[in-house]
Order: sequence, then C-alpha cells, then structure tokens
Amino acid sequence: MSSSELLLTLNNKALNLLQEDADKIEKLIEVQMENLTTRQCPLYEEVLDTQMYGLSREVDFAKRAGLITDLAGKQIISKLERNLAELYEALNQKK
Amino acid sequence: MSSSELLLTLNNKALNLLQEDADKIEKLIEVQMENLTTRQCPLYEEVLDTQMYGLSREVDFAKRAGLITDLAGKQIISKLERNLAELYEALNQKK
Repeated sequence: MSSSELLLTLNNKALNLLQEDADKIEKLIEVQMENLTTRQCPLYEEVLDTQMYGLSREVDFAKRAGLITDLAGKQIISKLERNLAELYEALNQKK
Repeated sequence: MSSSELLLTLNNKALNLLQEDADKIEKLIEVQMENLTTRQCPLYEEVLDTQMYGLSREVDFAKRAGLITDLAGKQIISKLERNLAELYEALNQKK
C-alpha cells in the first residue's frame, strides 16, 4: 500500500469510527423522542451531555492527529446538536 | 515518505497528543495536591472526573483507529489513575 493509500484508509477508518459513535448518540436521542409521550428518564439529559462531550473529545483528537478535516468534524457534531436541540425543545413543550 | 514511515509518524503524533492531554490532567492533580493544606475547590473532583472521561474516550478512539497499542493506552490511563487515587486519599485524610 502506498503512503497516500494508507493515509486514505486511516482517514476513512477514523471517520467511520466517529460516525459509529455519533450514530449511537443519535439512537439515544431517537429513543427519548419516541418516549416523549410515555415516560421520561431524568438521567437522559445527563447521559446525552456526557456522550456528546466524549464524542467532541474524540473528534477534536482526530482533527489534531490529522485524521479528519475541521469541516468533517464540525458536520458530525453540528448534526447531532441540531437533533439534541429538537429533543430539548420537545421536552420543554411537554413541561 | 514510505507507508511504514508515515504510520510511525502518525502513531507518534497520536501518542504525543494523548500524552499532552494526560499531562494537563497531571498538572490539575498536582495543583490540587499543593493546595491540600490551603484551600479546596469542591468542583475539582468533578473537573478531574470529566477530564479523565474525555481522555479515556480519546485513548479508546486512538486504539480503535489503530494509532496506538492497547498497552500504550492502558499505561497512560493507569498512571493518571494512580495519581488520582493518591489525591483522593490525601483529600480523605484531610476530612
């Protein structure tokens, strides 16, 4: 494998790993959205905040390690932040 | 640069970045140790826990991305955990 192929492989791997972790958070948000009308777990916000912090540290590390671009990192985080904002809005309307 | 040189460069870079972040936590622990007899900030434990969690996520990501070995990751974390344990022990003796 040439250097540029190796770099591409590592970059793709890093991006896929981050996307996997982002998908897990996405799933947590979806589950809570579906449960809006039935039950709410008070620890959900705490768990989501912690997970978001963890992911942001991973993304930041991947950027510093030269594995992903600034833009790719921002896209992963901002998509989740929009979904989180929707969830919190929906939760507030329930209150 | 050959593939193996590139990989070595990326591995070293990843390890250095993780060590930098570990050093920051180490510094936080030292500062709190020095302040044991003067003042204690109640948020310190919270901050340290959060920082440790963030670092563990970075280390885990670096392992999964194939940048560092399991052993290297464990060494970074366990050294900090020992220092943290010492700090908490010292804090408990003060109580």
